[in-house]
Amino acid sequence: MPQSTVTIATSGAGLYEFTDRASTFVRQSGAETGLLTLFVRHTSCSLIIQENADPDVRRDLEAFFRRLVPDADDPDMSFLVHRTEGPDDMPAHIKAALTAVSLSIPVTAGRLALGTWQGIYLFEHRTRPHRREIVLHLITGE
Amino acid sequence: MPQSTVTIATSGAGLYEFTDRASTFVRQSGAETGLLTLFVRHTSCSLIIQENADPDVRRDLEAFFRRLVPDADDPDMSFLVHRTEGPDDMPAHIKAALTAVSLSIPVTAGRLALGTWQGIYLFEHRTRPHRREIVLHLITGE
Amino acid sequence: MPQSTVTIATSGAGLYEFTDRASTFVRQSGAETGLLTLFVRHTSCSLIIQENADPDVRRDLEAFFRRLVPDADDPDMSFLVHRTEGPDDMPAHIKAALTAVSLSIPVTAGRLALGTWQGIYLFEHRTRPHRREIVLHLITGE
Repeated sequence: MPQSTVTIATSGAGLYEFTDRASTFVRQSGAETGLLTLFVRHTSCSLIIQENADPDVRRDLEAFFRRLVPDADDPDMSFLVHRTEGPDDMPAHIKAALTAVSLSIPVTAGRLALGTWQGIYLFEHRTRPHRREIVLHLITGE
Repeated sequence: MPQSTVTIATSGAGLYEFTDRASTFVRQSGAETGLLTLFVRHTSCSLIIQENADPDVRRDLEAFFRRLVPDADDPDMSFLVHRTEGPDDMPAHIKAALTAVSLSIPVTAGRLALGTWQGIYLFEHRTRPHRREIVLHLITGE
Repeated sequence: MPQSTVTIATSGAGLYEFTDRASTFVRQSGAETGLLTLFVRHTSCSLIIQENADPDVRRDLEAFFRRLVPDADDPDMSFLVHRTEGPDDMPAHIKAALTAVSLSIPVTAGRLALGTWQGIYLFEHRTRPHRREIVLHLITGE
Protein backbone atom coordinates (compact mmCIF):
# COMPACT_ATOMS: atom_id res chain seq x y z
CA MET A 1 0.00 0.00 0.00
CA PRO A 2 2.54 2.61 -1.01
CA GLN A 3 0.14 5.26 -2.34
CA SER A 4 -3.16 6.83 -1.43
CA THR A 5 -5.05 10.01 -2.30
CA VAL A 6 -6.52 12.42 0.22
CA THR A 7 -9.39 14.51 -1.13
CA ILE A 8 -10.35 17.73 0.62
CA ALA A 9 -13.45 19.79 -0.20
CA THR A 10 -12.55 23.42 0.47
CA SER A 11 -15.02 26.25 1.10
CA GLY A 12 -12.89 29.35 0.75
CA ALA A 13 -9.30 30.38 1.42
CA GLY A 14 -7.67 29.03 4.56
CA LEU A 15 -5.80 26.15 6.17
CA TYR A 16 -7.42 22.70 6.24
CA GLU A 17 -5.72 20.19 8.54
CA PHE A 18 -5.34 16.56 7.44
CA THR A 19 -2.64 15.31 9.84
CA ASP A 20 -4.96 12.51 11.02
CA ARG A 21 -5.49 11.13 7.54
CA ALA A 22 -1.74 11.09 6.84
CA SER A 23 -1.05 9.44 10.21
CA THR A 24 -3.72 6.81 9.62
CA PHE A 25 -2.25 5.95 6.22
CA VAL A 26 1.16 5.42 7.82
CA ARG A 27 -0.23 3.38 10.72
CA GLN A 28 -2.30 1.12 8.43
CA SER A 29 0.78 0.42 6.30
CA GLY A 30 2.48 -1.19 9.29
CA ALA A 31 5.76 0.54 8.38
CA GLU A 32 8.20 1.02 11.26
CA THR A 33 10.73 3.17 9.39
CA GLY A 34 10.09 5.06 6.19
CA LEU A 35 9.45 8.31 4.38
CA LEU A 36 6.04 9.81 3.60
CA THR A 37 5.85 12.25 0.69
CA LEU A 38 2.82 14.47 0.12
CA PHE A 39 2.16 16.03 -3.28
CA VAL A 40 -0.70 18.42 -4.14
CA ARG A 41 -2.02 18.14 -7.71
CA HIS A 42 -2.98 21.82 -8.12
CA THR A 43 -1.37 25.20 -8.72
CA SER A 44 -3.70 27.49 -6.77
CA CYS A 45 -3.44 25.78 -3.38
CA SER A 46 -0.42 24.38 -1.55
CA LEU A 47 0.89 22.40 1.42
CA ILE A 48 2.14 23.75 4.71
CA ILE A 49 3.22 22.37 8.06
CA GLN A 50 2.42 24.77 10.88
CA GLU A 51 1.53 25.05 14.53
CA ASN A 52 -1.71 23.24 15.36
CA ALA A 53 -2.09 24.64 18.89
CA ASP A 54 -3.32 28.26 18.74
CA PRO A 55 -5.74 28.86 15.83
CA ASP A 56 -4.61 32.50 15.79
CA VAL A 57 -1.35 31.30 14.17
CA ARG A 58 -3.29 30.10 11.13
CA ARG A 59 -5.39 33.28 11.07
CA ASP A 60 -2.25 35.45 11.15
CA LEU A 61 -0.55 33.36 8.47
CA GLU A 62 -3.52 33.80 6.16
CA ALA A 63 -3.64 37.54 6.92
CA PHE A 64 0.06 37.92 6.12
CA PHE A 65 -0.30 36.18 2.75
CA ARG A 66 -3.38 38.26 1.88
CA ARG A 67 -1.36 41.41 2.55
CA LEU A 68 1.74 40.21 0.72
CA VAL A 69 -0.33 39.11 -2.30
CA PRO A 70 -3.63 41.06 -2.41
CA ASP A 71 -6.40 40.18 -4.83
CA ALA A 72 -6.07 41.48 -8.39
CA ASP A 73 -8.56 44.31 -7.82
CA ASP A 74 -6.15 45.91 -5.32
CA PRO A 75 -4.30 48.88 -6.89
CA ASP A 76 -0.95 47.34 -5.85
CA MET A 77 -1.67 44.38 -8.12
CA SER A 78 -2.53 46.40 -11.24
CA PHE A 79 0.46 44.82 -13.02
CA LEU A 80 -1.31 41.43 -13.23
CA VAL A 81 -2.37 40.30 -16.71
CA HIS A 82 -3.99 36.90 -15.99
CA ARG A 83 -7.45 37.95 -14.76
CA THR A 84 -9.97 35.78 -16.59
CA GLU A 85 -10.51 33.36 -13.71
CA GLY A 86 -11.31 36.01 -11.09
CA PRO A 87 -9.39 38.45 -8.88
CA ASP A 88 -8.26 35.68 -6.49
CA ASP A 89 -6.82 33.36 -9.15
CA MET A 90 -3.43 34.83 -10.05
CA PRO A 91 -2.73 35.73 -6.37
CA ALA A 92 -3.51 32.06 -5.60
CA HIS A 93 -0.81 30.91 -8.05
CA ILE A 94 1.68 33.32 -6.44
CA LYS A 95 0.87 32.15 -2.89
CA ALA A 96 1.29 28.54 -4.05
CA ALA A 97 4.72 29.41 -5.49
CA LEU A 98 5.75 30.93 -2.12
CA THR A 99 4.79 27.80 -0.16
CA ALA A 100 5.13 24.05 -0.95
CA VAL A 101 3.77 21.67 -3.58
CA SER A 102 5.50 18.65 -1.98
CA LEU A 103 6.64 17.75 1.54
CA SER A 104 8.52 14.71 2.86
CA ILE A 105 8.24 13.50 6.45
CA PRO A 106 10.27 10.62 7.93
CA VAL A 107 8.48 7.76 9.70
CA THR A 108 10.16 6.63 12.93
CA ALA A 109 8.98 3.83 15.20
CA GLY A 110 5.79 3.52 13.17
CA ARG A 111 4.83 7.20 13.39
CA LEU A 112 5.36 10.42 11.44
CA ALA A 113 8.36 12.23 12.95
CA LEU A 114 6.37 15.44 13.36
CA GLY A 115 7.32 17.79 16.19
CA THR A 116 4.91 18.26 19.10
CA TRP A 117 3.13 21.25 17.56
CA GLN A 118 3.38 20.39 13.87
CA GLY A 119 0.19 19.84 11.89
CA ILE A 120 -0.11 19.16 8.14
CA TYR A 121 -2.41 21.51 6.23
CA LEU A 122 -3.76 22.11 2.78
CA PHE A 123 -3.45 25.85 2.19
CA GLU A 124 -6.39 26.81 -0.04
CA HIS A 125 -5.86 30.13 -1.84
CA ARG A 126 -9.12 30.28 -3.86
CA THR A 127 -12.39 31.81 -2.67
CA ARG A 128 -14.86 29.45 -4.34
CA PRO A 129 -15.26 25.81 -3.20
CA HIS A 130 -12.79 23.34 -4.71
CA ARG A 131 -12.12 19.61 -4.51
CA ARG A 132 -8.39 19.16 -3.89
CA GLU A 133 -6.30 16.02 -4.24
CA ILE A 134 -3.11 15.23 -2.35
CA VAL A 135 -1.16 12.09 -3.29
CA LEU A 136 0.52 10.28 -0.39
CA HIS A 137 3.51 8.11 -1.24
CA LEU A 138 5.10 5.94 1.45
CA ILE A 139 8.55 4.38 1.12
CA THR A 140 9.13 1.75 3.78
CA GLY A 141 12.37 0.42 5.25
CA GLU A 142 15.72 1.96 4.37
CA MET B 1 18.59 3.87 -14.08
CA PRO B 2 17.75 5.67 -10.85
CA GLN B 3 19.46 9.02 -11.63
CA SER B 4 19.87 11.41 -14.52
CA THR B 5 20.82 15.06 -14.95
CA VAL B 6 18.83 17.59 -16.94
CA THR B 7 20.89 20.53 -18.21
CA ILE B 8 19.15 23.76 -19.19
CA ALA B 9 20.85 26.67 -20.93
CA THR B 10 19.12 29.82 -19.72
CA SER B 11 19.13 33.20 -21.49
CA GLY B 12 17.81 35.55 -18.85
CA ALA B 13 15.38 35.46 -15.95
CA GLY B 14 12.20 33.47 -16.43
CA LEU B 15 10.53 30.07 -16.28
CA TYR B 16 11.92 27.22 -18.42
CA GLU B 17 9.66 24.19 -18.68
CA PHE B 18 11.18 20.70 -18.61
CA THR B 19 8.13 18.54 -17.82
CA ASP B 20 8.75 16.46 -20.96
CA ARG B 21 12.29 15.53 -19.96
CA ALA B 22 11.18 14.48 -16.49
CA SER B 23 8.28 12.45 -17.93
CA THR B 24 10.55 10.75 -20.48
CA PHE B 25 13.00 9.76 -17.74
CA VAL B 26 10.16 8.15 -15.79
CA ARG B 27 8.71 6.39 -18.84
CA GLN B 28 12.08 5.00 -19.92
CA SER B 29 12.66 3.59 -16.44
CA GLY B 30 9.63 1.35 -16.84
CA ALA B 31 8.57 2.12 -13.27
CA GLU B 32 4.87 1.65 -12.56
CA THR B 33 4.89 3.11 -9.03
CA GLY B 34 7.56 5.32 -7.54
CA LEU B 35 8.76 8.74 -6.49
CA LEU B 36 10.69 11.21 -8.63
CA THR B 37 12.79 13.80 -6.81
CA LEU B 38 14.22 16.86 -8.58
CA PHE B 39 17.14 18.78 -7.11
CA VAL B 40 18.70 21.94 -8.56
CA ARG B 41 22.45 22.33 -7.96
CA HIS B 42 22.49 26.14 -7.77
CA THR B 43 21.58 28.96 -5.37
CA SER B 44 20.50 31.68 -7.82
CA CYS B 45 17.80 29.71 -9.65
CA SER B 46 15.11 27.36 -8.32
CA LEU B 47 12.34 24.89 -9.13
CA ILE B 48 8.65 25.58 -9.42
CA ILE B 49 5.52 23.69 -10.46
CA GLN B 50 2.97 26.01 -12.02
CA GLU B 51 0.16 26.27 -14.53
CA ASN B 52 1.31 25.42 -18.05
CA ALA B 53 -1.86 26.61 -19.80
CA ASP B 54 -1.92 30.43 -19.98
CA PRO B 55 1.59 31.93 -20.45
CA ASP B 56 0.36 35.08 -18.67
CA VAL B 57 0.51 33.11 -15.40
CA ARG B 58 4.29 32.75 -15.78
CA ARG B 59 4.64 36.39 -16.81
CA ASP B 60 2.69 37.54 -13.74
CA LEU B 61 4.67 35.23 -11.44
CA GLU B 62 7.94 36.70 -12.70
CA ALA B 63 6.56 40.24 -12.36
CA PHE B 64 5.50 39.59 -8.77
CA PHE B 65 8.92 38.27 -7.78
CA ARG B 66 10.67 41.23 -9.49
CA ARG B 67 8.51 43.60 -7.44
CA LEU B 68 8.93 41.68 -4.18
CA VAL B 69 12.71 41.45 -4.66
CA PRO B 70 13.92 44.28 -6.95
CA ASP B 71 17.47 44.43 -8.27
CA ALA B 72 20.13 45.82 -5.94
CA ASP B 73 20.20 49.22 -7.69
CA ASP B 74 16.60 49.85 -6.55
CA PRO B 75 16.51 52.28 -3.57
CA ASP B 76 14.38 49.75 -1.62
CA MET B 77 17.30 47.30 -1.75
CA SER B 78 19.98 49.69 -0.47
CA PHE B 79 20.47 47.44 2.57
CA LEU B 80 22.15 44.74 0.45
CA VAL B 81 25.89 44.21 1.06
CA HIS B 82 26.69 41.39 -1.40
CA ARG B 83 26.99 43.31 -4.70
CA THR B 84 30.18 42.09 -6.38
CA GLU B 85 28.41 39.74 -8.80
CA GLY B 86 25.98 42.31 -10.21
CA PRO B 87 22.68 43.93 -9.13
CA ASP B 88 20.67 40.78 -9.99
CA ASP B 89 22.78 38.34 -7.95
CA MET B 90 21.71 38.83 -4.35
CA PRO B 91 18.02 39.21 -5.38
CA ALA B 92 18.46 35.89 -7.23
CA HIS B 93 19.57 34.18 -4.00
CA ILE B 94 16.55 35.64 -2.18
CA LYS B 95 14.09 34.52 -4.87
CA ALA B 96 15.64 31.03 -4.74
CA ALA B 97 15.13 30.97 -0.95
CA LEU B 98 11.45 31.87 -1.43
CA THR B 99 10.80 29.02 -3.88
CA ALA B 100 12.11 25.40 -4.03
CA VAL B 101 15.50 23.71 -4.39
CA SER B 102 13.94 20.22 -4.38
CA LEU B 103 10.56 18.77 -5.37
CA SER B 104 9.18 15.22 -5.11
CA ILE B 105 6.44 13.90 -7.39
CA PRO B 106 4.83 10.45 -7.04
CA VAL B 107 4.71 8.11 -10.05
CA THR B 108 1.37 6.32 -10.49
CA ALA B 109 0.52 3.81 -13.25
CA GLY B 110 3.80 4.59 -14.97
CA ARG B 111 3.30 8.37 -15.07
CA LEU B 112 4.08 11.43 -12.95
CA ALA B 113 1.03 12.18 -10.77
CA LEU B 114 0.93 15.81 -11.95
CA GLY B 115 -2.43 17.55 -12.05
CA THR B 116 -3.93 18.48 -15.41
CA TRP B 117 -2.39 21.95 -15.51
CA GLN B 118 0.86 21.34 -13.65
CA GLY B 119 4.14 21.88 -15.46
CA ILE B 120 7.66 21.59 -14.01
CA TYR B 121 9.87 24.65 -14.48
CA LEU B 122 13.36 25.86 -13.77
CA PHE B 123 12.96 29.39 -12.40
CA GLU B 124 16.04 31.31 -13.55
CA HIS B 125 16.69 34.46 -11.49
CA ARG B 126 19.91 35.70 -13.20
CA THR B 127 20.05 38.01 -16.20
CA ARG B 128 23.11 36.60 -17.96
CA PRO B 129 23.06 33.16 -19.64
CA HIS B 130 23.73 30.19 -17.36
CA ARG B 131 24.02 26.43 -17.73
CA ARG B 132 21.85 24.88 -14.99
CA GLU B 133 21.85 21.29 -13.75
CA ILE B 134 18.91 19.48 -12.17
CA VAL B 135 19.48 15.99 -10.75
CA LEU B 136 16.56 13.55 -11.19
CA HIS B 137 16.38 10.67 -8.73
CA LEU B 138 13.77 7.96 -9.19
CA ILE B 139 12.79 5.50 -6.48
CA THR B 140 10.76 2.62 -7.89
CA GLY B 141 8.29 0.29 -6.17
CA GLU B 142 7.25 0.96 -2.61
CA MET C 1 21.45 3.19 9.38
CA PRO C 2 18.66 4.93 7.49
CA GLN C 3 17.88 7.66 10.03
CA SER C 4 19.70 10.03 12.32
CA THR C 5 18.91 13.26 14.15
CA VAL C 6 21.01 16.42 14.00
CA THR C 7 20.56 18.71 17.01
CA ILE C 8 21.53 22.38 16.74
CA ALA C 9 21.67 24.78 19.67
CA THR C 10 20.76 28.20 18.30
CA SER C 11 21.59 31.54 19.91
CA GLY C 12 19.44 33.99 18.03
CA ALA C 13 18.05 34.39 14.51
CA GLY C 14 20.34 33.47 11.65
CA LEU C 15 21.68 30.69 9.44
CA TYR C 16 23.46 27.72 11.05
CA GLU C 17 25.35 25.49 8.62
CA PHE C 18 25.31 21.71 9.10
CA THR C 19 26.46 20.48 5.67
CA ASP C 20 29.32 18.55 7.29
CA ARG C 21 27.04 16.58 9.58
CA ALA C 22 24.75 15.61 6.69
CA SER C 23 27.74 14.63 4.54
CA THR C 24 29.25 12.54 7.32
CA PHE C 25 25.96 10.68 7.81
CA VAL C 26 25.90 9.82 4.10
CA ARG C 27 29.57 8.79 4.01
CA GLN C 28 29.24 6.58 7.09
CA SER C 29 26.25 4.80 5.54
CA GLY C 30 28.45 3.55 2.71
CA ALA C 31 25.69 4.36 0.20
CA GLU C 32 26.86 4.94 -3.38
CA THR C 33 23.50 6.05 -4.79
CA GLY C 34 20.54 7.29 -2.78
CA LEU C 35 18.37 10.13 -1.56
CA LEU C 36 18.85 12.08 1.66
CA THR C 37 15.77 13.81 3.09
CA LEU C 38 16.03 16.44 5.84
CA PHE C 39 13.02 17.33 7.99
CA VAL C 40 12.93 19.99 10.70
CA ARG C 41 10.61 19.23 13.63
CA HIS C 42 9.63 22.84 14.41
CA THR C 43 7.40 25.62 13.07
CA SER C 44 9.46 28.70 13.96
CA CYS C 45 12.69 27.74 12.16
CA SER C 46 13.25 26.20 8.75
CA LEU C 47 15.72 24.69 6.27
CA ILE C 48 17.52 26.46 3.47
CA ILE C 49 20.24 25.62 0.95
CA GLN C 50 22.27 28.70 0.09
CA GLU C 51 25.68 29.94 -0.98
CA ASN C 52 28.37 29.05 1.54
CA ALA C 53 31.12 31.23 0.02
CA ASP C 54 30.50 34.91 0.88
CA PRO C 55 28.99 35.35 4.40
CA ASP C 56 27.37 38.58 3.17
CA VAL C 57 24.88 36.43 1.24
CA ARG C 58 23.55 35.01 4.51
CA ARG C 59 23.54 38.46 6.14
CA ASP C 60 21.55 39.90 3.21
CA LEU C 61 19.12 36.96 3.23
CA GLU C 62 18.40 37.49 6.92
CA ALA C 63 18.02 41.26 6.37
CA PHE C 64 15.53 40.69 3.55
CA PHE C 65 13.38 38.36 5.64
CA ARG C 66 13.45 40.79 8.61
CA ARG C 67 12.18 43.54 6.30
CA LEU C 68 9.57 41.35 4.61
CA VAL C 69 8.29 40.07 7.98
CA PRO C 70 9.15 42.58 10.74
CA ASP C 71 8.63 41.79 14.39
CA ALA C 72 5.12 42.18 15.80
CA ASP C 73 5.90 45.53 17.46
CA ASP C 74 6.44 47.09 14.02
CA PRO C 75 3.39 49.20 12.97
CA ASP C 76 3.20 47.28 9.69
CA MET C 77 2.48 44.11 11.65
CA SER C 78 -0.33 45.52 13.79
CA PHE C 79 -2.74 43.01 12.20
CA LEU C 80 -1.13 40.09 14.09
CA VAL C 81 -3.25 38.47 16.81
CA HIS C 82 -0.91 35.71 18.09
CA ARG C 83 1.40 37.71 20.39
CA THR C 84 1.64 35.74 23.63
CA GLU C 85 5.03 34.18 22.86
CA GLY C 86 6.81 37.45 22.07
CA PRO C 87 7.08 39.86 19.12
CA ASP C 88 9.39 37.52 17.17
CA ASP C 89 7.16 34.41 17.40
CA MET C 90 4.43 34.93 14.81
CA PRO C 91 6.94 36.44 12.32
CA ALA C 92 9.02 33.28 12.87
CA HIS C 93 6.07 31.09 11.84
CA ILE C 94 5.58 33.23 8.72
CA LYS C 95 9.27 33.05 7.73
CA ALA C 96 9.15 29.27 8.22
CA ALA C 97 6.13 29.09 5.88
CA LEU C 98 8.05 31.06 3.22
CA THR C 99 11.04 28.70 3.29
CA ALA C 100 11.31 24.88 3.67
CA VAL C 101 10.40 22.30 6.32
CA SER C 102 11.83 19.42 4.25
CA LEU C 103 14.55 19.10 1.58
CA SER C 104 15.67 16.10 -0.48
CA ILE C 105 19.17 15.79 -1.93
CA PRO C 106 20.32 12.94 -4.21
CA VAL C 107 23.45 10.97 -3.33
CA THR C 108 25.72 10.26 -6.30
CA ALA C 109 29.00 8.31 -6.22
CA GLY C 110 28.84 8.23 -2.42
CA ARG C 111 28.39 11.99 -1.96
CA LEU C 112 25.57 14.51 -1.69
CA ALA C 113 24.94 15.96 -5.17
CA LEU C 114 25.26 19.54 -3.89
CA GLY C 115 26.53 22.19 -6.28
CA THR C 116 29.94 23.76 -5.66
CA TRP C 117 28.60 26.64 -3.57
CA GLN C 118 25.62 24.97 -1.91
CA GLY C 119 25.58 24.66 1.87
CA ILE C 120 22.76 23.27 4.04
CA TYR C 121 21.52 25.57 6.81
CA LEU C 122 19.06 25.66 9.64
CA PHE C 123 17.32 29.04 9.41
CA GLU C 124 16.52 30.07 12.98
CA HIS C 125 13.80 32.74 13.19
CA ARG C 126 13.55 33.10 16.98
CA THR C 127 15.62 35.49 19.11
CA ARG C 128 16.02 33.38 22.25
CA PRO C 129 18.20 30.24 22.30
CA HIS C 130 16.54 27.05 21.09
CA ARG C 131 17.48 23.41 20.69
CA ARG C 132 16.44 22.34 17.18
CA GLU C 133 16.10 18.84 15.77
CA ILE C 134 16.47 17.84 12.13
CA VAL C 135 15.69 14.25 11.15
CA LEU C 136 17.90 12.80 8.38
CA HIS C 137 16.43 9.92 6.37
CA LEU C 138 18.59 8.12 3.81
CA ILE C 139 17.20 5.84 1.11
CA THR C 140 19.93 3.82 -0.54
CA GLY C 141 20.07 2.20 -3.97
CA GLU C 142 17.33 2.78 -6.49
